[in-house]
Amino acid sequence: MLLRAQKTIKASAFNTYWMLEKQHIVSMRDFTREDVTFILDYAERMFPFARTGIELLQHKILALLFFEPSTRTQLSFDSAMKRLGGSTLSLSSEDSSILKGETITDTVKVVEGYADAIVLRHSREGAARMASEISNVPIINAGDGAGHHPTQTLLDLYTIRRESHLENLDIALLGDLKYGRTAHSLAYALNMFDANIALVAPDGLQMPSHIVDTLDSVTVTDNIDDVIHEVDVLYVTRIQKERFPDPNEYLRVAKSYRIYRSMLQGARDDLIILHPLPRVDEIATDVDQTKHAKYFQQAFYGIPVRMALLSIVMDKLL
Amino acid sequence: MLLRAQKTIKASAFNTYWMLEKQHIVSMRDFTREDVTFILDYAERMFPFARTGIELLQHKILALLFFEPSTRTQLSFDSAMKRLGGSTLSLSSEDSSILKGETITDTVKVVEGYADAIVLRHSREGAARMASEISNVPIINAGDGAGHHPTQTLLDLYTIRRESHLENLDIALLGDLKYGRTAHSLAYALNMFDANIALVAPDGLQMPSHIVDTLDSVTVTDNIDDVIHEVDVLYVTRIQKERFPDPNEYLRVAKSYRIYRSMLQGARDDLIILHPLPRVDEIATDVDQTKHAKYFQQAFYGIPVRMALLSIVMDKLL
Amino acid sequence: MLLRAQKTIKASAFNTYWMLEKQHIVSMRDFTREDVTFILDYAERMFPFARTGIELLQHKILALLFFEPSTRTQLSFDSAMKRLGGSTLSLSSEDSSILKGETITDTVKVVEGYADAIVLRHSREGAARMASEISNVPIINAGDGAGHHPTQTLLDLYTIRRESHLENLDIALLGDLKYGRTAHSLAYALNMFDANIALVAPDGLQMPSHIVDTLDSVTVTDNIDDVIHEVDVLYVTRIQKERFPDPNEYLRVAKSYRIYRSMLQGARDDLIILHPLPRVDEIATDVDQTKHAKYFQQAFYGIPVRMALLSIVMDKLL
Repeated sequence: MLLRAQKTIKASAFNTYWMLEKQHIVSMRDFTREDVTFILDYAERMFPFARTGIELLQHKILALLFFEPSTRTQLSFDSAMKRLGGSTLSLSSEDSSILKGETITDTVKVVEGYADAIVLRHSREGAARMASEISNVPIINAGDGAGHHPTQTLLDLYTIRRESHLENLDIALLGDLKYGRTAHSLAYALNMFDANIALVAPDGLQMPSHIVDTLDSVTVTDNIDDVIHEVDVLYVTRIQKERFPDPNEYLRVAKSYRIYRSMLQGARDDLIILHPLPRVDEIATDVDQTKHAKYFQQAFYGIPVRMALLSIVMDKLL
Repeated sequence: MLLRAQKTIKASAFNTYWMLEKQHIVSMRDFTREDVTFILDYAERMFPFARTGIELLQHKILALLFFEPSTRTQLSFDSAMKRLGGSTLSLSSEDSSILKGETITDTVKVVEGYADAIVLRHSREGAARMASEISNVPIINAGDGAGHHPTQTLLDLYTIRRESHLENLDIALLGDLKYGRTAHSLAYALNMFDANIALVAPDGLQMPSHIVDTLDSVTVTDNIDDVIHEVDVLYVTRIQKERFPDPNEYLRVAKSYRIYRSMLQGARDDLIILHPLPRVDEIATDVDQTKHAKYFQQAFYGIPVRMALLSIVMDKLL
Repeated sequence: MLLRAQKTIKASAFNTYWMLEKQHIVSMRDFTREDVTFILDYAERMFPFARTGIELLQHKILALLFFEPSTRTQLSFDSAMKRLGGSTLSLSSEDSSILKGETITDTVKVVEGYADAIVLRHSREGAARMASEISNVPIINAGDGAGHHPTQTLLDLYTIRRESHLENLDIALLGDLKYGRTAHSLAYALNMFDANIALVAPDGLQMPSHIVDTLDSVTVTDNIDDVIHEVDVLYVTRIQKERFPDPNEYLRVAKSYRIYRSMLQGARDDLIILHPLPRVDEIATDVDQTKHAKYFQQAFYGIPVRMALLSIVMDKLL
């Protein structure tokens, strides 16, 4: 909604762009379906340059402000910015420990003087929203604790649209759906595109009802066998050991939520399997060689999607 | 003096530059008032490019050799170099711990093969001077323990000149003036420009008399109320807890040296408040919204000043 | 051998290049003498640009994936890539600890989506070979435990050829020749060029016989005085304290393998002394000022050699 309110339309002889006035990327809930479609379309235009690079953000600087480690997300933004011809400043977790003496507000007010946009990762929910309220440069939320991680959701959607389809999708979300921020955000977004969503989680790790209630077409089960043959996408997430007081209970559950190659017999021919990575052993490595495995491709799609977002927030459109 | 002795004058059809033969930046004491004025003027020429960037140091590499952490200084140099179109190599503190097996001399002799200039931060006083004596590439001192940090002083002077004025300035330096390297160096430099300097520090943390004796127009007090209404610039520095054996004594002192919005009533209309940052709580956040607060602006001015210095030492002038 | 099998020859009006199809750099044992000569010749063409830089790999990204710290090697690759106009993504050791939850295979499959080549350092022997078998982008081995470190050997050879000569060389390898990977790999490579190799190591740290047996012209001694006057190159390596159960025994041995200026009297006029660095005190600092000392020069030669390798594996030849 925020985004929609702020965007203006720029028409040229060849293209129509939505342009954002104040270009923070904080939460999927700020986006309409129309916004998301625009971003995914624009990522598609970036795709050819995700390997070759393009001079779009030369002289621009992106600050990667990671108050908690997230190597993969940091690398992905770093690569995306460099593919656009720009530079990055990195504060890895141990650097930022030095900053702990000061408030996030002060850090952001200083770093905005050094960079044209800030990617912010912080363990505290709401940190990115707060930063966006005081920053003069765009803030991109790269995960705020139990809160949001919108660029992950956008790359998930991009992968689904590119490797399967987004409209009237049959999808199963598997794993810890109670604490998993990724699954919450993805379910919300898929619902905008009228997906049929199966939620597959062990007892005690089911998706909170306040989220389930917002979904228009939803099935809840604790057994993957119920749905594995009837979906276009199987989205696997991690089940964290520390959620279980009893280690044996964890082992039992983790085993029954692990995907093996043999389980895929009878699945739809064009089933794709996704995972936000890193995996521990939620997906057996014998699945990697099947045509269904798309999780490494999914990681790569983070590049065109983040290139698109960086290009949008820095107001240099292709 | 060193610098003056080494510089040569190059006249072109349009500009006159001072150029340095051996371009180390080690201490403010190496600079004359004329040198400082040249650097500040040149920083002013860089200012328009501090946001947009300029292709001046393409293909050049700056090594950021930080034997102790100083995230903000490192980021500022990193940003300045990239705004000039150059690249950086970073050794953060934990990397450099690996280098501890070898002498600084050996590290510098290796790194000079990888870069066109070296920014050096080290806990040992004199480290930068020593490095400058053996290095074939310019050394920029980014802080050597209790010694010098000339680029901080230059950005302080630049801020004062841009946001207030440098000639016949009334300024108060507040906080720990005994151990605070920043305050020593700034007092020395301001004296070159005939400033009237009020030194405001608690008992036991007053500026050493060997420095006070070099100042031409100086007032010493322990009470900020004595001077707050009569200065153009209030320069606030930190008072470190570890200087006080008694924690209650620290709390009492820290409180009486904290700047609140209400204290600014009756201050000069164009008073500016500076702080090298990070602040802990020397300045209440309610001061941030006043027109007096210039500390975040001051952090930003590090970019044009460091761009100017990098351009000078690498001998690629605008 | 691998390399030779894969290379194809490309002739242009002016130059003939060997080009590699699948361009991993894993071990010196993959190279023929012809391969090595090509790489050294090509490094010579890069040499003029090792200081000034050249736009050859613009838009290209090199990932520096260091699972164990090796600051110098990492910096050297970082500098080489930037001198070529490219960018780098760095995972320093503490970042990569985050990756430990996942297999190297998974990490490589993700990082290959972010970069055009991967420099890999890992404590486990064989890690680079394994990575090269699954990676779609070139892998450059920057050290795999007790295994290989081919780019170090290539820069050693380049230094020897440039500062002395490579054919029919008289060389002494000094220090821990039992565990020292550098010495093993260098001995293997020098033998390809018909070097006369003197192995000088203390009892218990002599080069393993299975390596000695492959050398065509070799002398084994524990006394540096036997050979110091009869060599063109003295290659000094470290003797690690932890190899000795008795600290006094270590001190005695380390002392007798230390090179002093006075020991160089009577040496060949054009003797050069090399060391892979960092040194602890294997070479006294009074040697640094002699014409024989070439170890800092050797570190610098890592730049043109690595520029050459990066240019080759990314298939953008000068």
